Amino acid sequence: MLKIAVDAMGGDFAPAEIVKGAVEALGARKDFKVVFTGDRAAVEGELAKYKYDPARVEIVHCTEVITGDDIPTHAIRAKKDSSLTVGLRLLKEDGDVGGLVSAGSTGAVLTGGVMLVGRIKGVMRPALCPGIPNVRGTRTLLCDCGANAECKPAYLQQFAIMATAYGRAAFGMKEPTVGLLNNGTEEHKGDPLHQEAFRLLQQTDGIRFVGNVEGRDIMFGDVDIVVSDGFSGNIALKSAEGCGKTVSAVLKQEFKRNLGSKLAYVFARKQIGKLRDMLDYAKLGGSVFLGMKKVIVKSHGNSKANAFGPSVLQAVDACKGDLVGEIERLLRAADLGAENE
Amino acid sequence: MLKIAVDAMGGDFAPAEIVKGAVEALGARKDFKVVFTGDRAAVEGELAKYKYDPARVEIVHCTEVITGDDIPTHAIRAKKDSSLTVGLRLLKEDGDVGGLVSAGSTGAVLTGGVMLVGRIKGVMRPALCPGIPNVRGTRTLLCDCGANAECKPAYLQQFAIMATAYGRAAFGMKEPTVGLLNNGTEEHKGDPLHQEAFRLLQQTDGIRFVGNVEGRDIMFGDVDIVVSDGFSGNIALKSAEGCGKTVSAVLKQEFKRNLGSKLAYVFARKQIGKLRDMLDYAKLGGSVFLGMKKVIVKSHGNSKANAFGPSVLQAVDACKGDLVGEIERLLRAADLGAENE
Repeated sequence: MLKIAVDAMGGDFAPAEIVKGAVEALGARKDFKVVFTGDRAAVEGELAKYKYDPARVEIVHCTEVITGDDIPTHAIRAKKDSSLTVGLRLLKEDGDVGGLVSAGSTGAVLTGGVMLVGRIKGVMRPALCPGIPNVRGTRTLLCDCGANAECKPAYLQQFAIMATAYGRAAFGMKEPTVGLLNNGTEEHKGDPLHQEAFRLLQQTDGIRFVGNVEGRDIMFGDVDIVVSDGFSGNIALKSAEGCGKTVSAVLKQEFKRNLGSKLAYVFARKQIGKLRDMLDYAKLGGSVFLGMKKVIVKSHGNSKANAFGPSVLQAVDACKGDLVGEIERLLRAADLGAENE
Repeated sequence: MLKIAVDAMGGDFAPAEIVKGAVEALGARKDFKVVFTGDRAAVEGELAKYKYDPARVEIVHCTEVITGDDIPTHAIRAKKDSSLTVGLRLLKEDGDVGGLVSAGSTGAVLTGGVMLVGRIKGVMRPALCPGIPNVRGTRTLLCDCGANAECKPAYLQQFAIMATAYGRAAFGMKEPTVGLLNNGTEEHKGDPLHQEAFRLLQQTDGIRFVGNVEGRDIMFGDVDIVVSDGFSGNIALKSAEGCGKTVSAVLKQEFKRNLGSKLAYVFARKQIGKLRDMLDYAKLGGSVFLGMKKVIVKSHGNSKANAFGPSVLQAVDACKGDLVGEIERLLRAADLGAENE
């Protein structure tokens, strides 16, 4: 049975919320097991609080934790017995372990993934790809959203291929449309990086490139995938997130203003709740690290159980949909040749 | 009395909504006049629909219009009798005309501004600076949001100085805080451009630099000014805009779902309305083109009267607050030396 490795010690609320979230995920689907890496006593202490099937849970004890203060490359080498490095080695070595989920340091997860699990052959730069809620009620895949601050055009071409594979493997998208995040929709918009990326994407087999898109199209447009350099993607993701947080804050303030507004809230609770749910990125899971030989999901560092659970299920979906195989197939089909080396 | 030139023919809804918006602005403040540039008959036809003080309105007839299809540099030279070029020449030559407002082609307004009005001495690159609504109920100034897709670190340093001057001149900000839009808050985040910009901003006299900020801080943070390269700034602005549009669309959908939700809306109308107002960028006016010898405001191309009117008042505020003089003073105070040439 498929196993998902869970870094029990990574994140602001580890291990309590991590274990709770993983147990909730186990309750939601019956077709996978969880392998916790972390302090056995601490994990068992948290597990004891919940009902779960012991046959679907393993614990691999380890003694160290990588924190946000650690320098990623150094920490991965130095802390050989940390919950993250032990989990990543499991991921690489145990054929049953198809994916890993961590809410730990992004830098450490990315660096550790590359160092211990490795990239798919031909992948120049792995990329982070979250699914952003959109006006259509589906998800817009944004790739890269922060793994690569500096990009070459050929990287963006591969981001498009990997995100297309992800959309097909995990979201049931048949032929997802791909847009290039730019500062305007006209063909020649942007700096040389984006102008050249546009040209490459037009020539790429196996993806459905529809041209440039703008920031507003991530949530309000009708494109399935938005390809971006990691710097702009990070800005876009967090700008939309900031707008969502502001909306929630304003609603809270307005409806708590006085007795009348509190009464109004009672009537509108259901509709406001639906909006809040849509804006609650946490509940949508984390970002998948595309381009690695196994599935790696980075959950928000401040993840509570309701955010970590979906991240675990996200890893399960990616494994069951054969994300890695789909990326390999599309990369071969695109036949990028020399650019690929 | 201060005069504001209004490009009556620029924008998707010109001249009808442009004239209507300008008339509304005239009604909101008594201390300025409007000079319309455009087809006299068309402008008079629109003016005839409203009550206004004829003594505060002038029309300079011209026969041409620059459209979005025109190539800016070419159009400015070729269409010497267009409503935009005539307005810009008025702005340069008539001492009473302190500002110009146009909802026409952004490229033409920027190019025309530089060619016909000119930059303030020492300004390397003028920049577009809108005021984004934030959770504090004030505005966050975002500079540059699109005039310069490719930037050097020294440009961003000047953006910070010009936006600080704008905050002081038009928003009553005493010592506005300045953040650098980056892909993380740590000091060494970002690509070489942003790492070097960070170093320059730290050394800049006359601004209150508080370090790196993230996309979410534009609306949800507590910084007054966010400095950005024009590419990232454009992505950030439009990403937040897309989130806002999505929120409005979801609310509309949820509250129109059935009789019960329609009833709920009746109760919550006031609170929802306040949120909608906050998210309605249009009502906040346009983007000021900082660094020019006179005040130039670019209003959205799809501006209706309720968006164009505020843009006109924005130009009035900038003129009354001596925006241009304030930028000159702060640039001198910063004493950028060689970088300035």
